[in-house]
Amino acid sequence: MSVQQPKFELRDEDELSLDLIEAQYALKDSQDKKNAKSVLILVSGIELAGKGEAVKQLREWLDPRYLRVKADAPRLLTTYQTFWQSYTRFIPAEGQIVVMFGNWYSDLLSTAMHVSKPLDETLFDAYIDQMRSFEHDLQHNNVHVVKVWFDLSWKSLQKRLDQIDASEQHWHKLHGLDWRNKKQYDTLQELSQRFTDDWFVIDGEDEALRDQCFAQYILQTLQELPDHQTKVTEKWQQAQIPTALLEPSKQSLDKDDYKEELNKLTKKVADALRYDERKVIVAFEGMDAAGKGGAIKRIVKKLDPREYEIHSIAAPERYELRRPYLWRFWNKLNDGGKITIFDRTWYGRVLVERIEGFASVVEWQRAYNEINRFEENLVDSQTVIVKIWLAISKDEQEVRFKDREQTPHKRFKITEEDWRNRDKWDDYLKAAADMFERTNTDYAPWYVIATDDKNTARIEVLKAILKQLKAD
Amino acid sequence: MSVQQPKFELRDEDELSLDLIEAQYALKDSQDKKNAKSVLILVSGIELAGKGEAVKQLREWLDPRYLRVKADAPRLLTTYQTFWQSYTRFIPAEGQIVVMFGNWYSDLLSTAMHVSKPLDETLFDAYIDQMRSFEHDLQHNNVHVVKVWFDLSWKSLQKRLDQIDASEQHWHKLHGLDWRNKKQYDTLQELSQRFTDDWFVIDGEDEALRDQCFAQYILQTLQELPDHQTKVTEKWQQAQIPTALLEPSKQSLDKDDYKEELNKLTKKVADALRYDERKVIVAFEGMDAAGKGGAIKRIVKKLDPREYEIHSIAAPERYELRRPYLWRFWNKLNDGGKITIFDRTWYGRVLVERIEGFASVVEWQRAYNEINRFEENLVDSQTVIVKIWLAISKDEQEVRFKDREQTPHKRFKITEEDWRNRDKWDDYLKAAADMFERTNTDYAPWYVIATDDKNTARIEVLKAILKQLKAD
Repeated sequence: MSVQQPKFELRDEDELSLDLIEAQYALKDSQDKKNAKSVLILVSGIELAGKGEAVKQLREWLDPRYLRVKADAPRLLTTYQTFWQSYTRFIPAEGQIVVMFGNWYSDLLSTAMHVSKPLDETLFDAYIDQMRSFEHDLQHNNVHVVKVWFDLSWKSLQKRLDQIDASEQHWHKLHGLDWRNKKQYDTLQELSQRFTDDWFVIDGEDEALRDQCFAQYILQTLQELPDHQTKVTEKWQQAQIPTALLEPSKQSLDKDDYKEELNKLTKKVADALRYDERKVIVAFEGMDAAGKGGAIKRIVKKLDPREYEIHSIAAPERYELRRPYLWRFWNKLNDGGKITIFDRTWYGRVLVERIEGFASVVEWQRAYNEINRFEENLVDSQTVIVKIWLAISKDEQEVRFKDREQTPHKRFKITEEDWRNRDKWDDYLKAAADMFERTNTDYAPWYVIATDDKNTARIEVLKAILKQLKAD
Repeated sequence: MSVQQPKFELRDEDELSLDLIEAQYALKDSQDKKNAKSVLILVSGIELAGKGEAVKQLREWLDPRYLRVKADAPRLLTTYQTFWQSYTRFIPAEGQIVVMFGNWYSDLLSTAMHVSKPLDETLFDAYIDQMRSFEHDLQHNNVHVVKVWFDLSWKSLQKRLDQIDASEQHWHKLHGLDWRNKKQYDTLQELSQRFTDDWFVIDGEDEALRDQCFAQYILQTLQELPDHQTKVTEKWQQAQIPTALLEPSKQSLDKDDYKEELNKLTKKVADALRYDERKVIVAFEGMDAAGKGGAIKRIVKKLDPREYEIHSIAAPERYELRRPYLWRFWNKLNDGGKITIFDRTWYGRVLVERIEGFASVVEWQRAYNEINRFEENLVDSQTVIVKIWLAISKDEQEVRFKDREQTPHKRFKITEEDWRNRDKWDDYLKAAADMFERTNTDYAPWYVIATDDKNTARIEVLKAILKQLKAD
């Protein structure tokens, strides 16, 4: 996918500014409306090619109150952190524009150029693929991504280096590369060839034109933002509902056996979670009253609260709705520690949001792959994901609902909404079936656990965690 | 201020749970209402005294979806970070309850116990004072702070250490202290005496009573949340409006002199900002059209956008309004880098919020000291704060407003609201006068700069920065 390189000519600055501001306000006004978008501008390129100046100039032409420029020095990519992790907090909300000066590409380039441990080509290209997929998913979630590369010839770069003063030169040097080194320059140019075909490339030679090219390209982008996709292209193939969901096993355990087994397993799980070198995410889904709370309680039984965090996921807040649906999970993981437990998860997108129509058909159908990529990125970054579906029978749910209604201190656990969800039982089964079929990956498989017998379920949950950690 | 230590007896668990949930829902329902509150529970104490168990139990008795437990291993306090910096992101919003297991006190204790570099008593007590002030300010901003200390005798601690298995023992050891060391235990007990008189202290001896004491104390807290303070205690002393505000100087500069001076100063400022070892915050306030944007442009002229971040502060969003007014600034500083520029600031509390009535009289009158403490904490943590008020005359503002109205690409800069604010000119002058009198501190003084002549103003802004950095 290569970007068409538009040609721009110098325009009257005041008129350009006026057009930019109008486009910016139109974007801003889209917030909370049907075609709401945000714009994320990634800026990278050769040092001294003028990207800094161009961004400063754009800031002056726009209303700076609604433009955020996020600029960080490059971070080296590591195997224990996803490339997007440091940046997701700054993904713009609907109506906003964010310029990311430091971004995953500058991190990748720095890593690849890092002399003591250079990145090999296969890994480099694999990163590029992942980054493009991530941006693709952002686009689909209404974050329009624009990538602009500022280029500069070796000769001009050297001339500019001659002209800047010592302090600036020192600062630029600190930022990773020796721009006096021809071999490094050539390597960087070679590397950039490997991914800039979907970037808008600006030649930094002509300073006035450079700033205008950048601004005019952003203007064009703002004016031509695509509508949200609404058409579904393929006919949906409903997956068959697994027997494990239709008729969950009711096999029960002897009480003494349960106690002994539980005691043994809670210790084993605590050790496995504690001493695994990777981060661990345990993700629970299932019908209401399937026993998620009770299962979580047993997982953390022998752990200290400083060792884990539990997130109970409720409906998203308005400011969260203005970002990609994964945004609130990205951020929870960023703030998190070694062990994170989710009582309901990002799978809400293909369960409740699908069924209630909060996500459009195109959106939830697209979400399976988005979620798979999200999880794959995490697993590739030293994280184990244990996904557990607690399967309850419809009869047993009714028993538990009624028990909740009749027990004062449990009454908060049951609302009209739970009964309404129960009416949609078959829809949920279908949605779950589709979910299993499409997100039961090698790197993050689903564990479907029958919960009509609570004790058996709790034991099985602990075993699933051990299995996924390869500690059983 | 010592906390009265209530006595609790064992209650029926289901009834206790029911009461807790009711109190929790009442808190939750207060969101966006007049008496909205949030509750922040700080938990610390002797290892194995059962704080982890008590928190886990509380989580089971409450609705876990609306209780967040944030637990971190202790961090050592440093001289280049405020003690609250790692925690402000997790300050609860109205209606929420957050338990902070790791908190500023555990950090302080760890730091004080750190063998190679123990903290001296004066510094320890100074930290305690600061922490209490910070909590006091949180309380006033509707975050009710509860502190619970779990105590355990040396004998019982040793007995419990004998009973836990190797893995747990190892984990507890990793958390800072050797709990087998009597001397360390005694030191910790001594240290804790220095600050726990305003804590609710729970004896960890009796396990069942311990969990109930904790839960019942939280219940009592939830049931007895104080109303928001509305009465103003003292008569307000309006400060005299400084001449510099009433009649800003119109002194102008020769154009050539300006260019030369500007060129020299922008370089000097870039170097000073770049090479100062501290972080730098430049904070702008002033009437509309006073030239904040133009001044900022000159500050960053010789800097690369990766070296600084600019925040243009607009009205707070709803989710921000549910937290203390400083919350959004805390977080911006947490995410920030070395140089941060604010186009409008936290002083909005005592300017626009005072004048428009968004803050109550008690609230804005209290804000001066809150802001002073906020800035003092930052300055104590290797941060320079340069506060600049751009003073424009009322006539010159009119000229600039009209120019904005008549220039298409500047029209976005002028709205009906600006004209309405202009009608309140005298109120703003009074508010500014009070602000100077009460927040012009040694560690963060105000620079009032006349801006009727834009060029002079820009030069003076650069000089002010150099002066505050002691680089002039």
